[in-house]
Amino acid sequence: MSRPRPDRRRILLLTEGRTTPLSAKTATGVIRYGRGRVVGLIDSTQAGQTAGALLDVGGDIPVCASLSQAPEADTLIIGIAPAGGTLTSGMRGVIREAIGRGMHVESGMHYFLSDDEQFVRLAKLSGATLTDLRKNTERDVARFEAFDPGCLRLHTVGNDSCVGKMLVSVELARGLAMAGCDTKFVATGQTGMLIEGDGCAVDSVVSDFVGGATERLVLAAQDHKAMVVEGQGSLANPRYSGVTMGLLHGCLPDGLVLCYEAGRTEIVGLEPMLLPPLEQVAQAFLSAANLHHPCRFIGVAINGRLLSDDACLREKESVQKRLNLPAWDVVREGIDGLVGEALKLRRELGKI
Amino acid sequence: MSRPRPDRRRILLLTEGRTTPLSAKTATGVIRYGRGRVVGLIDSTQAGQTAGALLDVGGDIPVCASLSQAPEADTLIIGIAPAGGTLTSGMRGVIREAIGRGMHVESGMHYFLSDDEQFVRLAKLSGATLTDLRKNTERDVARFEAFDPGCLRLHTVGNDSCVGKMLVSVELARGLAMAGCDTKFVATGQTGMLIEGDGCAVDSVVSDFVGGATERLVLAAQDHKAMVVEGQGSLANPRYSGVTMGLLHGCLPDGLVLCYEAGRTEIVGLEPMLLPPLEQVAQAFLSAANLHHPCRFIGVAINGRLLSDDACLREKESVQKRLNLPAWDVVREGIDGLVGEALKLRRELGKI
Repeated sequence: MSRPRPDRRRILLLTEGRTTPLSAKTATGVIRYGRGRVVGLIDSTQAGQTAGALLDVGGDIPVCASLSQAPEADTLIIGIAPAGGTLTSGMRGVIREAIGRGMHVESGMHYFLSDDEQFVRLAKLSGATLTDLRKNTERDVARFEAFDPGCLRLHTVGNDSCVGKMLVSVELARGLAMAGCDTKFVATGQTGMLIEGDGCAVDSVVSDFVGGATERLVLAAQDHKAMVVEGQGSLANPRYSGVTMGLLHGCLPDGLVLCYEAGRTEIVGLEPMLLPPLEQVAQAFLSAANLHHPCRFIGVAINGRLLSDDACLREKESVQKRLNLPAWDVVREGIDGLVGEALKLRRELGKI
Repeated sequence: MSRPRPDRRRILLLTEGRTTPLSAKTATGVIRYGRGRVVGLIDSTQAGQTAGALLDVGGDIPVCASLSQAPEADTLIIGIAPAGGTLTSGMRGVIREAIGRGMHVESGMHYFLSDDEQFVRLAKLSGATLTDLRKNTERDVARFEAFDPGCLRLHTVGNDSCVGKMLVSVELARGLAMAGCDTKFVATGQTGMLIEGDGCAVDSVVSDFVGGATERLVLAAQDHKAMVVEGQGSLANPRYSGVTMGLLHGCLPDGLVLCYEAGRTEIVGLEPMLLPPLEQVAQAFLSAANLHHPCRFIGVAINGRLLSDDACLREKESVQKRLNLPAWDVVREGIDGLVGEALKLRRELGKI
């Protein structure tokens, strides 16, 4: 099957056994922002449901039990990325079938489809293509020759994984562009790469080279007036804080956006380990970022998906007072507030 | 050639073109603490010199132009680890010859000898063994089930790479053991692994798994009364700060030792990028470490190799006042001071 133009693809998302907002982050990202049309999800444990009901996005997109019961499609994207990134046998079966049909299969797992002898053999027979978004050959340390001072570097950071950094990054880049400031979304994870069509999954780069890989992304984006570098993990999620730090120093941001999910008290995947207070997390980011480049927060992005409208309003007032920063629930209130703060920083720094 | 017991090995160190204290860190570490006897260095640009003259350690150990001009040996260790870790053609020639002789060749480079078809083919013929200290298959994220509260976790951190963290770690572990507190040196880099015979070069682990790899080292060391986890890079060296952070959160130390080289003003390898003030570096480490586990500095290790005795004394007084911490030049003054501070922390935390 020859590869269709990305925006004409008909996509199935494999979310077997994990069609939930936290586990199916890649799926929700592709539904929201992906190029091409998502025609179905595959999860044998939730067949008959809809994406909208399970993920809060995607409306009537059906959840199907198997490939044979799903609408016709040319592309299968693995829509989940569990910690460690391994493949269950249920997922293997669907992938084998998709390869057998000659589909384009894209994966953001740490386990590489293109290293799997069975998949590779099948793909040779059928003409299927296998794309591993996390596969990389990054082998350069960062050089830190000066970045272009004319280009504003923004970076989204969070108090945890899975709080909405990617969504805020995409919205902020698009919002700035709409406001006349040509801005690049710099994708640093598999879902962002599916959306933007370029980028690097820095969490799968050998740790010595995370800074170098990030620097390369920044250098490639500097012909825009601004960039939003997607954050990964958090200094407050000790599992992934090395990735977070490599990224922070690799892009040396001028401005940060602090993303968090209201109501979350424990570190995702490490429950019952408690999240540190937001103030302490913000301080750790500032302390680390300012070692090498002057940097401040421009605002806070509240992920208020667990809150009622009223509760979200109270949360907003409270967090603005606590952090002395403006805050918005980007999904409820839109991105304009953060766009305004970003443009203000740009003027302050004389980049205009 | 059958592999000799580590402590009976006759070792040649390959330091081609880079026999200097900063570049030949692995060589100086093996000379100081390695198991086995170093009988020569190979550097065609410095033949006729001695290790003592070029590296300040190793006394009369000769620097030889080639393998054929060096004393007989069974082991060749690559004694340098340049940024990025590639192999020059001069080095390749010596390695080929060593393999041809059936020697044991050990390397800590990012470039793997055992992935080099020519080396592998030659080794098959001669019976040589190829050991890549940085090669790993780490694929586990950290779990953060509770560490044993009875075991004191110490961690050396620095304001830069190449300031003496490994030396201080080895000395502190040995000093604590001498004082009756059975202590494990936890090696996290290739030189430490050559010294200790185990460990993991965390800078070559895929970044998502640095915390997990570190956690595994800590869990394996908990049957000792204390451990000193060797630091890597620095939060203040933006090239490697991701590695540093992954390590810090992977071991969740009770106590830190701050290592720095007196007189250094620029970040090694990134000159003329300036080192941030020590106070700011110390604060960034505390800020990050205390997100997850209570932690304080127990003291400062001054690397005073560039200073006269008098200047070192003045530096010591000044840094003690600036950081409000006790400080010692471990090479000049020994490790007893830091051992005392570590034992004090152990008592404070009720681990005794």
